Amino acid sequence: MAEPADILRRLFDAAVARADPLRVVPPNLPEPPRGRTVVVGAGKAAAAMAKAVEDSWPGPIEGVVVTRYGHGLPCSRIDVVEAGHPMPDAAGREAAAHVMAQVDGLGADDLVLCLISGGGSALLVQPAAGISLEDKQAVTRALLRSGAAIDEMNAVRKHLSAIKGGRLAQRAAPARVVTLAISDVPGDDPSVIASGPTVPDPTTRADALAVLRRYHIAVPEAVRRHLDDPAAETPKPGDAVFERTELRMIATPQEALDAAAAAARAMGLAPLVLSDSIEGEAREVARVLAAIARQVADRGQPVPAPCVVLSGGETTVTVRGNGRGGRNAEFLLGLAIALQGHGRIHAIACDTDGIDGSEDNAGALIGPETLARARALGLDPAGMLADNDAYSLFEKLGALLVTGPTRTNVNDFRAIFVGSPA
Amino acid sequence: MAEPADILRRLFDAAVARADPLRVVPPNLPEPPRGRTVVVGAGKAAAAMAKAVEDSWPGPIEGVVVTRYGHGLPCSRIDVVEAGHPMPDAAGREAAAHVMAQVDGLGADDLVLCLISGGGSALLVQPAAGISLEDKQAVTRALLRSGAAIDEMNAVRKHLSAIKGGRLAQRAAPARVVTLAISDVPGDDPSVIASGPTVPDPTTRADALAVLRRYHIAVPEAVRRHLDDPAAETPKPGDAVFERTELRMIATPQEALDAAAAAARAMGLAPLVLSDSIEGEAREVARVLAAIARQVADRGQPVPAPCVVLSGGETTVTVRGNGRGGRNAEFLLGLAIALQGHGRIHAIACDTDGIDGSEDNAGALIGPETLARARALGLDPAGMLADNDAYSLFEKLGALLVTGPTRTNVNDFRAIFVGSPA
Repeated sequence: MAEPADILRRLFDAAVARADPLRVVPPNLPEPPRGRTVVVGAGKAAAAMAKAVEDSWPGPIEGVVVTRYGHGLPCSRIDVVEAGHPMPDAAGREAAAHVMAQVDGLGADDLVLCLISGGGSALLVQPAAGISLEDKQAVTRALLRSGAAIDEMNAVRKHLSAIKGGRLAQRAAPARVVTLAISDVPGDDPSVIASGPTVPDPTTRADALAVLRRYHIAVPEAVRRHLDDPAAETPKPGDAVFERTELRMIATPQEALDAAAAAARAMGLAPLVLSDSIEGEAREVARVLAAIARQVADRGQPVPAPCVVLSGGETTVTVRGNGRGGRNAEFLLGLAIALQGHGRIHAIACDTDGIDGSEDNAGALIGPETLARARALGLDPAGMLADNDAYSLFEKLGALLVTGPTRTNVNDFRAIFVGSPA
Repeated sequence: MAEPADILRRLFDAAVARADPLRVVPPNLPEPPRGRTVVVGAGKAAAAMAKAVEDSWPGPIEGVVVTRYGHGLPCSRIDVVEAGHPMPDAAGREAAAHVMAQVDGLGADDLVLCLISGGGSALLVQPAAGISLEDKQAVTRALLRSGAAIDEMNAVRKHLSAIKGGRLAQRAAPARVVTLAISDVPGDDPSVIASGPTVPDPTTRADALAVLRRYHIAVPEAVRRHLDDPAAETPKPGDAVFERTELRMIATPQEALDAAAAAARAMGLAPLVLSDSIEGEAREVARVLAAIARQVADRGQPVPAPCVVLSGGETTVTVRGNGRGGRNAEFLLGLAIALQGHGRIHAIACDTDGIDGSEDNAGALIGPETLARARALGLDPAGMLADNDAYSLFEKLGALLVTGPTRTNVNDFRAIFVGSPA
């Protein structure tokens, strides 16, 4: 059998490959229309999705997509714009205006191909008419501080946007709209991925107002006036605007995990897929997964070793220190500490988009020697975890995994390898 | 099939029954000695263990055991003393003196039966000679605040005690010592259960001093003098004192889980045993287990429904609010919130000792209707979780599980039932 680190790297590669736009876009393209074909889109996978369309589309095509800085790819017929993420910037605002202009004035014979992936919400920003970007951002910031749940925040944001919550589809009518989506959200709800610019919004103005009241958010006058206007209501499930829209989910976290599981089986390893949507504080998630890995190693439950424990989803990091590192690095450092050098357990954790948080690595790798090697270098693993400084530790160990942007995004990927008893 | 709540209750009962002293003590008793038989012990299971010995011991017997208030049972030949837990009190200090007096002056033909279970560390308190209880408690409190790990704290505590860390066995020599232990600790390390009064201590005075230095603990002069004295060294693995000691582990969290798994199979349910030693913040553990339960329900991974997901161990609660509830109630409220009323998932979580934290319940039960029923009563589940008030919520729902003290202790028990798709 190959080295554990090589096995884990191959599993990650298999997961990312399953979500590669160059593979999943072409078989999901619709028939060309009688009229024009316009491509729009946003997200970390937008450039690769656009390139995949361009490479296999049989007729004339035009359009604009927006992706994160560093995630671009040269296209010849579709404009690929790079913009700020997770904080929106001027480039994103300009790109949003171009996207909306592209779908204006289309007819019933025309086709809009909308390429959606995670990150699109921040990359495609246009406040509803009458609201300034500053007003919208003030409300968003207050919501972030309020403790509101993500679905509560989204109910508000969709009702303050000219694009999200089905508004883009509304603008494109009467053209046919086919959305190709790559999911990075638990449950794969298309109204959540990039805030669903082409899908019905199940939330209402009343929901948005209730959230603002519930969390005592101070609402600028222009926002209040907008939300009081019936025209602020987003298009709803069953509305006529969606009669000519269609959504094709072309890659999901679950499919990426299943691909990794198949790769594990091909290497003679039993895969244990725990969940495609694990959420929670990274270091706490690590303690639970460490206990499960030890159970496999020491008790042969719920499956005997050799085995790989696979999971997806998105952990969070409550930043209390001053160190460097994304959620996957923090998870792995917590895991290494919880495992205390267990002799048969290795792990990888990476963001499938290739960028863990705001660093340059996709993730990192740990093994039985991680803690001992760190201490031999004079590092204090527990202290560095307390300082949210996992990146620095793995950098000094040479244990970072650097892939660069993968130009897809099915959220986090974790694999824990448990070797056979000697 | 029975109702999910009944199934879950039966699984908990099966787990507790597996660790019932009346069942597990008798087959593990040694042959009576030529000399006297003295019984000592401490822990939440001490009274039931003493009763089990008394009921089946063929010869004369005497002794004293100490258990938590409310966990006693009447015995006729062994004194059963109740004392404070988790905070030691005067009753525990007196009982400790009686225990030590019992094993004094025994000969090589005599037998000490030592009955050890979780909780014994707080119930059996005697500082080393020359140290006041106040000095010892001051160090313990400072360690608790310092962020020291549990094994670091134990290294210090064992070196400040006249009983822990093998000292009781040392005192009992040259008598033969047979310890019957019920484990409530991850890894079932006998030197950790009740701080191992009859087993070798792998930690040293130097370790204890290093911990005090590492966490900048202000050490009273008497404690410093004691730790500088070579006589403060606890007995070590291989020491002659352990030549006539023997430890029999008679019940463990793993065996309790295996018993619940067998009960599940007998009811036609596939058990998925995740771990006997899950640790972490209760509400975060809940989010991870919720994700795994949803994976079973919605994807049939890692096993298809119907199934029960079983786990043991001990979660923690970082208290930030003013409410009521132990770690199992807090875990369940977090689980209910994470599951958002999933239609096929029910769960139970209880402390196997019958007391969740400092309340009167063992734990509670949740189901698909938990959140909706709470809201219908005007309760705010997320707000009550933020206030650490899970007990109040489950009390109002009539969802508490009250068993009274079970007189055993194999730590927490969690079972999540996932029903078949309709």
